[in-house]
Amino acid sequence: MPIRYPNGKPYVPSAQNQLASQKQKSYSNRGMTLEEDINKSNTYYLSVGKAVIHKKPTPVQIVNVDYPKRSAAVIKEAYFKQASTTDYNGVYKGRYIDFEAKETKNKTSFPLNNFHEHQITHMKQVIDQDGICFIILRFSTSDEVFFYDASHLLHHWCEMTNGGRKSIKKQDIERNGIKIPYSFQPRIDYMKIIDKMYFNYC
Amino acid sequence: MPIRYPNGKPYVPSAQNQLASQKQKSYSNRGMTLEEDINKSNTYYLSVGKAVIHKKPTPVQIVNVDYPKRSAAVIKEAYFKQASTTDYNGVYKGRYIDFEAKETKNKTSFPLNNFHEHQITHMKQVIDQDGICFIILRFSTSDEVFFYDASHLLHHWCEMTNGGRKSIKKQDIERNGIKIPYSFQPRIDYMKIIDKMYFNYC
Repeated sequence: MPIRYPNGKPYVPSAQNQLASQKQKSYSNRGMTLEEDINKSNTYYLSVGKAVIHKKPTPVQIVNVDYPKRSAAVIKEAYFKQASTTDYNGVYKGRYIDFEAKETKNKTSFPLNNFHEHQITHMKQVIDQDGICFIILRFSTSDEVFFYDASHLLHHWCEMTNGGRKSIKKQDIERNGIKIPYSFQPRIDYMKIIDKMYFNYC
Repeated sequence: MPIRYPNGKPYVPSAQNQLASQKQKSYSNRGMTLEEDINKSNTYYLSVGKAVIHKKPTPVQIVNVDYPKRSAAVIKEAYFKQASTTDYNGVYKGRYIDFEAKETKNKTSFPLNNFHEHQITHMKQVIDQDGICFIILRFSTSDEVFFYDASHLLHHWCEMTNGGRKSIKKQDIERNGIKIPYSFQPRIDYMKIIDKMYFNYC
């Protein structure tokens, strides 16, 4: 339902407001909380020798660098590039681990526009090479985190490209995914699920 | 032997010349040729479904970003960060692959200062997790490229920290490494060596 002024005219955001709202949206979608929790979990895994998982640096196209005397090089002009892979990868017991972490404010579904075509292609390639590939999804309103195998995501992506839903129903994520309860250390113990799913540990 | 002026006084480079020479040195050490060859080889491996190997983006600390209206965000101030891992990783037949590529102008040895403590630590962690970890070395003068298992590098690093040599003798690399002949496609077929060493293919 559109927001309306008291005179009944619908409220149309100005270009500036739209821009501000887009910025805010893109900021909220960066998933800082989930990202921080996962980074800390990875640091924990590394410190106890459980697994070696790192977040890849943000890809940046560097255009202009200044080399001041006696101090560090300063990048003066650069642009964000679209990532061609997922954000996280690493190794556990010789196996390749690869995943992406995303959060949404939606309550009943997870919008597929959180993922880029490139990332989907990359996940397919990883699965073809027998890598362990998944996504970690957070519903920020209810603060629930799920482990969801990439194969399910690829299925929904395929359906979308054939005119199907543009989001994954939360029920589907609850059914086909695995809820990751928060713990103290590591905060998001996704390796426990990998142990169960791929190494038959309980 | 120091360079001397005709009057016999030794030539001492000015701060500016030193800086220029450092820049040049650091540029030559970036190994663009080897890097380009490896990137192209990785693109080839990906295109034929052989393996999924990517170079990680250069880590950058972003300080200031400008969001102009109607155009892409511009990074106005950023700094290079030291990488905490190696440059390349990925997956082959489920196994985790991890390596660093370096080249030298030296003819008889490979200086260990081409590697950072962080990278050495990372390689140890990868080996502990049973990942496939190695370095690709290029002697640029003779244009020879070698596959050298990370375990050998770690051995030499350990010796250095105990007061030993600060470089790896080329003879050692020839004995314990495997020479990678240039080929048309892929240019540097290091996966062929992984096939031999880890998957018993000939």
